[in-house]
Amino acid sequence: MTKKSKEVYTSLLKDSVSNVPEYVPGKTTSQIVAEYGLDPKTVIKLNANENPLGPSKKVTEAIQREAKNASLYPTADASNLRRALTEYTGFPIENIVAAGPGMDSLIDALNKLFVGDGDEVIIPVPTFTYYGISAVGFGGIPVYVPLNPDYSFNADAVLKAVTDKTKIIWLCSPNNPTGNLVAAEDVVKLAEKTNAIIFIDEAYVEFSEARSLSFLLKEYENIVIGRTFSKAFGLAGMRLGYTIAPAWITSGLLRVLPPFAVSVLAEAAAIAAINDKEYLKASVEMVQAERQKLIESISKTSYKAYPSEGNFIIVDVSPKNSKAAVDSFLRNGIIIRSCDSFQNIGKNTVRITVGTSEMNQKIVKAFEFLKNEK
Amino acid sequence: MTKKSKEVYTSLLKDSVSNVPEYVPGKTTSQIVAEYGLDPKTVIKLNANENPLGPSKKVTEAIQREAKNASLYPTADASNLRRALTEYTGFPIENIVAAGPGMDSLIDALNKLFVGDGDEVIIPVPTFTYYGISAVGFGGIPVYVPLNPDYSFNADAVLKAVTDKTKIIWLCSPNNPTGNLVAAEDVVKLAEKTNAIIFIDEAYVEFSEARSLSFLLKEYENIVIGRTFSKAFGLAGMRLGYTIAPAWITSGLLRVLPPFAVSVLAEAAAIAAINDKEYLKASVEMVQAERQKLIESISKTSYKAYPSEGNFIIVDVSPKNSKAAVDSFLRNGIIIRSCDSFQNIGKNTVRITVGTSEMNQKIVKAFEFLKNEK
Repeated sequence: MTKKSKEVYTSLLKDSVSNVPEYVPGKTTSQIVAEYGLDPKTVIKLNANENPLGPSKKVTEAIQREAKNASLYPTADASNLRRALTEYTGFPIENIVAAGPGMDSLIDALNKLFVGDGDEVIIPVPTFTYYGISAVGFGGIPVYVPLNPDYSFNADAVLKAVTDKTKIIWLCSPNNPTGNLVAAEDVVKLAEKTNAIIFIDEAYVEFSEARSLSFLLKEYENIVIGRTFSKAFGLAGMRLGYTIAPAWITSGLLRVLPPFAVSVLAEAAAIAAINDKEYLKASVEMVQAERQKLIESISKTSYKAYPSEGNFIIVDVSPKNSKAAVDSFLRNGIIIRSCDSFQNIGKNTVRITVGTSEMNQKIVKAFEFLKNEK
Repeated sequence: MTKKSKEVYTSLLKDSVSNVPEYVPGKTTSQIVAEYGLDPKTVIKLNANENPLGPSKKVTEAIQREAKNASLYPTADASNLRRALTEYTGFPIENIVAAGPGMDSLIDALNKLFVGDGDEVIIPVPTFTYYGISAVGFGGIPVYVPLNPDYSFNADAVLKAVTDKTKIIWLCSPNNPTGNLVAAEDVVKLAEKTNAIIFIDEAYVEFSEARSLSFLLKEYENIVIGRTFSKAFGLAGMRLGYTIAPAWITSGLLRVLPPFAVSVLAEAAAIAAINDKEYLKASVEMVQAERQKLIESISKTSYKAYPSEGNFIIVDVSPKNSKAAVDSFLRNGIIIRSCDSFQNIGKNTVRITVGTSEMNQKIVKAFEFLKNEK
């Protein structure tokens, strides 16, 4: 028999799959260092909202201790970590699922539970792009609803977009990349006036002065909170997220996620991170203090920096475009992120992770450099 | 407005999801120790086909070195690991995807690419149960085809089960739990006589005396090889698998998997494991030598032990049933696995991981103990 060409088989691919848009990730330091010929020792990486303090010492010690168990399967449902999260979140284990890779794995699992061919999900934009990418992978149709021009949340616009086919409304608070919050009363409005699932991504909630919206779970059976160990806990490299959700959704998630979804090292690292309250407090206090100083200093350079409840800020670099600004920062050894891969934010906005005091002084100097560039 | 009950929302769940059967994982030592009141220091865990030698020292050192980077995102597509795998597998990076949690994540991703509502997948049984669980989660219908009574592969029975709706044929070689191989000519027969994707799970291939079936990828555009770091590489706790697949399938997998699917520690551990050729060789040589001795010794106790190309064997414990045998072994401080959660293998078979020489002597004694039990 003659060899068959791949065209015989590519028709097996589901339609939904060919529609999946590409996710544009922040680059790693080694990728950028190679591209721009920079010195890796002096480069400042502020493009991915990682914790500039690095992981907690108690976490690295826990990882080093646990390394000897790398050959053994973890528990199937990460029960030790979920128990540790009961204290941290104030919710019982029946409401908690932990999984990796990252919160993305839980976003996928929610779409797998609720979204099929032709179902709609509503996504206020600009926001984290993976909600839409994930929905398309399951045959869903993302319905993008613009935030107000000042990036504040528009609950009425979301409600107008709801149809019979709406399965999930994806919210992010503090919102990535705009840094602002969704108000509890807006979530209540959506939860009461629709029968859709309301997902609230609280990846950055620890950095906010406001309280978590998780208290709404006590009242509503259609609200899911997403969290991560990547930001305030300083564990982006461990790829670990968790959800707080009604018991009926939690049991659905555990059903569709693969077993053993949390590695032994991710589980040990996360438990150590939860227990190191000093590190978490120091991380949050640094961000809150430095964020305010950074916004004020950038505003003095004449660029518009927006207020933020996250560990990042956005800055309008007009009349420069965002890619030119990113290039200019790279020439100063600082990696920041252009927002042009986000929807509905234009071509003139950059996102910068709040760094240490020393890093932030360099950011301000880089803005002065940018301003004086032709 | 009054609070809505969850019944308003549970109709949002896709039908496919409520059909997902439960995966029955091997228990962890701490779970069993607590249940049976055993001494954790002397318990021998041979229920999950982990490497009894523990992780390689070079791996634990790599993890300990890399712990400081736990706060940084890895590369989006695990490119360093994929490059390391090009040498190990003999295939270029365009044919390789690495992802976690475990090979399960890649089984899910393949079903996500190819299997939707009403599509069929063919699964010769008994075999690893996750293929079917995963397919159902995507709306697929598992068509279970029995192996021959001696557990040898029956290509004609598989071909008879093929319909227009068949999307994936799931093979496992060496097969879990039966330990035997699928012959290359049988795979060729399936690849030529159907247009379905042929998946070959080679989780245990390193322990086999036969060569990998990956060479078939040079001839066929519809064959995918699944591999894991959990077995011969001794990294079950890191939850990391990879596929070798035609470029068109590789690019599809990268599209539907979440970005950053491999943690920084899993990537560092896996690269160190690939580079520690001595550890791999020692692990494989131990299994191959001990496996043969174990089968011979058990056969002398009058129980039937089957030949195996994996790091495990199955034993028919008739007239005892498998659960009674597992209990009896636990009373001797040895954790083995009942096969009764596998399809088409009956209630009298147990699966035992090949241990060290010392462990295996205790297994033989436990069979003598079992034989003399009322």
